[in-house]
Amino acid sequence: MDKSQIIFNDTVYGFINIPSGIIFDIISHPYFQRLRRIKQLGLTYLVYPGALHNRFQHAIGTVHLMNQALEVLRSKGHTITNEEIQAANIAVLLHDIGHGPFSHTLENHVVENITHEELSVLYMHKLNDVFNNQLELAINIFMNKYSKKFLYQLVHGQLDVDRMDYLNRDSFYTGVYEGIIGYDRIIKMLNVYQDELVVDAKGIYSIENFIIARRLMYWQVYLHKTVIAAEQMLVKILNRAKELYNNGVKLFVTSQLKLFLENKFTYKEFSSNNDAINCFLRLDDFDIMICIKEWAYNKDFVLARLCQGLIDRKLLGIELQNNPISANKMDQIKDRAVKTFNISKKEAEYLVFKDTTVNSAYDPEEPKINILFKNGEVMDIAEASDQLNISVLSKPVKKCYLCYPKEIK
Amino acid sequence: MDKSQIIFNDTVYGFINIPSGIIFDIISHPYFQRLRRIKQLGLTYLVYPGALHNRFQHAIGTVHLMNQALEVLRSKGHTITNEEIQAANIAVLLHDIGHGPFSHTLENHVVENITHEELSVLYMHKLNDVFNNQLELAINIFMNKYSKKFLYQLVHGQLDVDRMDYLNRDSFYTGVYEGIIGYDRIIKMLNVYQDELVVDAKGIYSIENFIIARRLMYWQVYLHKTVIAAEQMLVKILNRAKELYNNGVKLFVTSQLKLFLENKFTYKEFSSNNDAINCFLRLDDFDIMICIKEWAYNKDFVLARLCQGLIDRKLLGIELQNNPISANKMDQIKDRAVKTFNISKKEAEYLVFKDTTVNSAYDPEEPKINILFKNGEVMDIAEASDQLNISVLSKPVKKCYLCYPKEIK
Amino acid sequence: MDKSQIIFNDTVYGFINIPSGIIFDIISHPYFQRLRRIKQLGLTYLVYPGALHNRFQHAIGTVHLMNQALEVLRSKGHTITNEEIQAANIAVLLHDIGHGPFSHTLENHVVENITHEELSVLYMHKLNDVFNNQLELAINIFMNKYSKKFLYQLVHGQLDVDRMDYLNRDSFYTGVYEGIIGYDRIIKMLNVYQDELVVDAKGIYSIENFIIARRLMYWQVYLHKTVIAAEQMLVKILNRAKELYNNGVKLFVTSQLKLFLENKFTYKEFSSNNDAINCFLRLDDFDIMICIKEWAYNKDFVLARLCQGLIDRKLLGIELQNNPISANKMDQIKDRAVKTFNISKKEAEYLVFKDTTVNSAYDPEEPKINILFKNGEVMDIAEASDQLNISVLSKPVKKCYLCYPKEIK
Amino acid sequence: MDKSQIIFNDTVYGFINIPSGIIFDIISHPYFQRLRRIKQLGLTYLVYPGALHNRFQHAIGTVHLMNQALEVLRSKGHTITNEEIQAANIAVLLHDIGHGPFSHTLENHVVENITHEELSVLYMHKLNDVFNNQLELAINIFMNKYSKKFLYQLVHGQLDVDRMDYLNRDSFYTGVYEGIIGYDRIIKMLNVYQDELVVDAKGIYSIENFIIARRLMYWQVYLHKTVIAAEQMLVKILNRAKELYNNGVKLFVTSQLKLFLENKFTYKEFSSNNDAINCFLRLDDFDIMICIKEWAYNKDFVLARLCQGLIDRKLLGIELQNNPISANKMDQIKDRAVKTFNISKKEAEYLVFKDTTVNSAYDPEEPKINILFKNGEVMDIAEASDQLNISVLSKPVKKCYLCYPKEIK
Repeated sequence: MDKSQIIFNDTVYGFINIPSGIIFDIISHPYFQRLRRIKQLGLTYLVYPGALHNRFQHAIGTVHLMNQALEVLRSKGHTITNEEIQAANIAVLLHDIGHGPFSHTLENHVVENITHEELSVLYMHKLNDVFNNQLELAINIFMNKYSKKFLYQLVHGQLDVDRMDYLNRDSFYTGVYEGIIGYDRIIKMLNVYQDELVVDAKGIYSIENFIIARRLMYWQVYLHKTVIAAEQMLVKILNRAKELYNNGVKLFVTSQLKLFLENKFTYKEFSSNNDAINCFLRLDDFDIMICIKEWAYNKDFVLARLCQGLIDRKLLGIELQNNPISANKMDQIKDRAVKTFNISKKEAEYLVFKDTTVNSAYDPEEPKINILFKNGEVMDIAEASDQLNISVLSKPVKKCYLCYPKEIK
Repeated sequence: MDKSQIIFNDTVYGFINIPSGIIFDIISHPYFQRLRRIKQLGLTYLVYPGALHNRFQHAIGTVHLMNQALEVLRSKGHTITNEEIQAANIAVLLHDIGHGPFSHTLENHVVENITHEELSVLYMHKLNDVFNNQLELAINIFMNKYSKKFLYQLVHGQLDVDRMDYLNRDSFYTGVYEGIIGYDRIIKMLNVYQDELVVDAKGIYSIENFIIARRLMYWQVYLHKTVIAAEQMLVKILNRAKELYNNGVKLFVTSQLKLFLENKFTYKEFSSNNDAINCFLRLDDFDIMICIKEWAYNKDFVLARLCQGLIDRKLLGIELQNNPISANKMDQIKDRAVKTFNISKKEAEYLVFKDTTVNSAYDPEEPKINILFKNGEVMDIAEASDQLNISVLSKPVKKCYLCYPKEIK
Repeated sequence: MDKSQIIFNDTVYGFINIPSGIIFDIISHPYFQRLRRIKQLGLTYLVYPGALHNRFQHAIGTVHLMNQALEVLRSKGHTITNEEIQAANIAVLLHDIGHGPFSHTLENHVVENITHEELSVLYMHKLNDVFNNQLELAINIFMNKYSKKFLYQLVHGQLDVDRMDYLNRDSFYTGVYEGIIGYDRIIKMLNVYQDELVVDAKGIYSIENFIIARRLMYWQVYLHKTVIAAEQMLVKILNRAKELYNNGVKLFVTSQLKLFLENKFTYKEFSSNNDAINCFLRLDDFDIMICIKEWAYNKDFVLARLCQGLIDRKLLGIELQNNPISANKMDQIKDRAVKTFNISKKEAEYLVFKDTTVNSAYDPEEPKINILFKNGEVMDIAEASDQLNISVLSKPVKKCYLCYPKEIK
Repeated sequence: MDKSQIIFNDTVYGFINIPSGIIFDIISHPYFQRLRRIKQLGLTYLVYPGALHNRFQHAIGTVHLMNQALEVLRSKGHTITNEEIQAANIAVLLHDIGHGPFSHTLENHVVENITHEELSVLYMHKLNDVFNNQLELAINIFMNKYSKKFLYQLVHGQLDVDRMDYLNRDSFYTGVYEGIIGYDRIIKMLNVYQDELVVDAKGIYSIENFIIARRLMYWQVYLHKTVIAAEQMLVKILNRAKELYNNGVKLFVTSQLKLFLENKFTYKEFSSNNDAINCFLRLDDFDIMICIKEWAYNKDFVLARLCQGLIDRKLLGIELQNNPISANKMDQIKDRAVKTFNISKKEAEYLVFKDTTVNSAYDPEEPKINILFKNGEVMDIAEASDQLNISVLSKPVKKCYLCYPKEIK
């Protein structure tokens, strides 16, 4: 029996071979196994019932794409050592290791003012200790400190294997086929020019399609208005719970979550607090969901109302529009909430609130997607595309929304 | 905007139209929304990472197939009223409403000696009260008390829409393509003969394939040895927790689960106890998983060991074989456990144990799959199949297994 | 056994039900069966080996989508009679009935100066005679003479079921997934406003994606430079054969093709010539391919060379560029051809030639794709799209190409 | 630009990389390009409209699977040299090179008493000459003269890459999903034992499923009764044409087909006749189809009738049954044919005829599928399978059929 590799059954790509050795050992580590309990798309399953996949699957998917990409680059004559392959694999495998429960939704809310990337680096260092400094090169690549920049760009950029995998995977699990990208065609077109990742000119149409597909996924899935409503409810729940907790109200809470209801950490505090570091690594979607289930029967009207809403899928209503929400309108609804539910104005703010959401399909601030022409010229896709007006795509689109309980509309 | 139907994005079938009205209202009811939190395949995701789908998706899928089947039967000239269609839809929608956390694995372990079918009937009656007796016909169909037996057989039989959906769906989410069945071809071949469901003779090969595919899914997925090991760990965890709890050990437990750690209900006690009935309806995978997470740090070695094993995917080793496990061998390993872990013999039984698992691809005791020939003759598939020896398939296959901590092998 | 409908196994959509009756009778008619012998994508299979599907499959696919679309419109409260449904089905079923061998490639070359749409109308009238005037309404819809304009727009427009089917189908058979469109999402969003087809505002992103996908398919498949080279060789072959034939050279030719090598018909001549009408209906890809096979051994160097090239896939080289091909460059290559192959300058023009190809993703001249907003406003997608610069997409893109035998480059 | 490999867009597997060099050169050779014009499933498209794929695609698909299989075997520690890989690739690439038009249907009818395997060997030798003896090892493997028998068994056996590819591909293009096999799971389970191909015991269920899927494809597709009717018509057409031709009737015929209407070759005659050898390599589906199109207007009633039937899909009726067709019944129908069509009894035999078709799912005469158990034991799947009665599957199933014009039933 072959022991030199482990095979994962992936729903998106079929069999994924993972070489036994350190990569498999990292996957087997509790830090990584935790990602099985963090859904990739948070509460999106309330709109797309199949969107239950988790960051564990995604991370392994990115390793698969990374290997395909590196094989293509090697076949085009670029030198990539086995050590670099392993390090790039580890870097991408761990790119989301710092994600907490419900990923982006609660980022900055469970642990405040710390991004998941910062946490990923922190936990990579922890794993580096566990694995006798074998992750050094991986960390350098992840932090863009390695000379072969294209390795970093495959992990993090506007055309990285992260994006390719999540578009594929989120399309698959939501059933929104329009998000499907020709990832294999794109990967075949990858190339390296002066240590940077570029795309052979033949691949322009695929890149345009990739950008458009991603944009579609944003509006159709990631920023679907019902998803926004659900996610905002989750944020409000956590805020309300913290408020109550800090006011001395007794609340059901799991061992792991307790620390984060009680404390607000700076990055410095967090990174030097072993309890906090370990607690966070035991925290996942289950801690949050079970609290919501328990809090749904709490005496606090606001907390109970929001929690019940999420559990029974009685979501807040939401209005999404291009123009700012009128403060006046919001105040009127808030007044109705005060009266109808017999709550204070401050409490009403947990149920009636407005905010904005922004997305740009292509961000000219981030590392560009560069096209390599046969004559050796390199050009940003925003210029190279002869037809799609990518400069228009780069303009961030801002949408404003207003949430409130449906019965007081 | 069309309000006459609601559309679900299903990953397996694409859009599923659900007519607004009572069916949609049942789906929106908290009883049904709970199914979103009960995974279809329990711990199978530890082997097939994508198997995260839930009973909510499955139940809606069965409604989709039910409608296709009824449309085919109507097109073949069989009278089916709109009331019957609605009732058959409700019956199949709710066929799993009585499932508790981790479905089959913990059936009989959370609430003992009560099947999920009994609970389904109980909760259908509860919903019948909520919906002003509109579920009467559905309940009759579900309990096989309705004259048009084929409606029952579509809900529960050896060729029901339940099996068709779960084979499709489980294949999809595990990536085991061999479980894919030609459900649309089978449905086109359905017919009714003397009020019973039959299959037109042209469909014989598809039925054979269906039976074989189901058998394959059993051995490849449902009874995969690693899945068995994980599921048995879960059962042992619950048993150990109950034992500790009843011995007065203080254990973290969620509000909903508490009642079931404390009590052992008969069906009669359960069905007349409103607290129990309501508590069960608030219970789902999250209650169990969060307890496991907390118990992983319990002082009780056995409980902590098993819980940590499930959380970090350090599963017990398992040997699966056709012949009975020798008691001798088990005792030796148990002794090693006692010595190695410094635990009692009784405690060791939670870590070292044997049992059997049984499966038959086609059960001659259950309602048969009948084939309708052009000359009007009807024949059991077991006889009609000219080649597949279905009588062999009907013989239950029994496999014996032994579990134990890997390090004391 | 159910005789009220016939089921087609379609690779793209699964089972397609066609009601028995006139639609099935038309499908069974030799005129329609001929479409089995006309490939949808001509010589594209020389680049994408799977692109072997034919207009028969496509036509039946459009009927499937038409029925889905009409069902959606009906469910939104628009009155559509059964007669209208049947007529719309027939209209779309026959929309390509006038296509000749190799579809667009040889349009205007087998029968000159007559479009396939004109021929489609001609043959619809012929079938109308066969079927006792039952196609009148279908013909009216096809010719946009019917009051409910949306029926016409579903057959022929910038968002018709023709485009939806061919994008789906061509993506499927070429394996270019990027061409996949969310046709079912689009169809769900169709609506009618003042008898015209519109799209509910929620569908904007799907429409944008549809336009981009179509554009990608143009450059990646339909106007793939190798496909262009092959198609131009086919055109040159036919021209050369006609020239030789008219110069009295004896050529192998099938009974059906003979008439069209000998004659150049005006539409008027053609439509009043029964021989021509019937001959054309017997003509298909096989007539052309067999001639090419035979002509590959013809004594005429030019004809043999081109034919052998197509048969053995030794295609002409092609250069594709945004700027015009320099006449000078072409002349130099032509001179080399004259010298190398010892042929006349006029003959060399069959082997060395330049031309242009044009495509616009969205054509503002054609009927617009109109978006219906909730407030009742209707707006062209080119304006409604908040981000994609569709006005840019509407600008036709012109590419210039030069073909020549590879060995004389 | 990478020139070290060529990429084929395959509809079934996605991108297939073919190393440039001799394998690509063989693919580019006219002998191999001819396979583009030979449909894999002959006339099956008259029942499954999508079944238009050809032997070119299939052959390249088998190379893809061969490479996957060899990679797995190498990863399990078996030595396979690069030369062996190349030779195995060539052997499987050319395994069908000897197929003539309409593959199996006309095997023995165009060139009589010569199998396509014999022709494949013949043409491999021809190509061996073209490519300076680089095919020697490939020929040895193909003829089972090479020591590493498993290479032969991958090309030709009961679990070869030929079968795996055609089941995948034919399922895909017919839309009969039940034929889908877990080819990647099977390939992962391949192993070598004493130079023979075996399957690791874990793969038993996949093998059972593979055998059942293949059997299903036989009855559902390959031996579908309407397909049989169409294929028999094709055979009768060729026979009738030969008869007429040899009686001096003037018939349209293509240059390539002429030789085979005129002559009946023994293998010896054929293999020493350069004209015959070359002619056959120019012969493909197009020669046959164009003759059928022309003969549809022939004065001979029988020939015209059969040809028109194929062209317009007015097929002969067919009855398929387990018991022999009564000679009496056939004679009665034949008499009706004589009377109705005013033809001779001998002519009627072209329109009214009976025959049998046989299939066994697993052939114990052919090289067995051997299962390798962990304890080193090797066992035939027919014995190893604990449940499927493969000995029953091995029993050939014989079906009898009767064909006749529908109007004289």
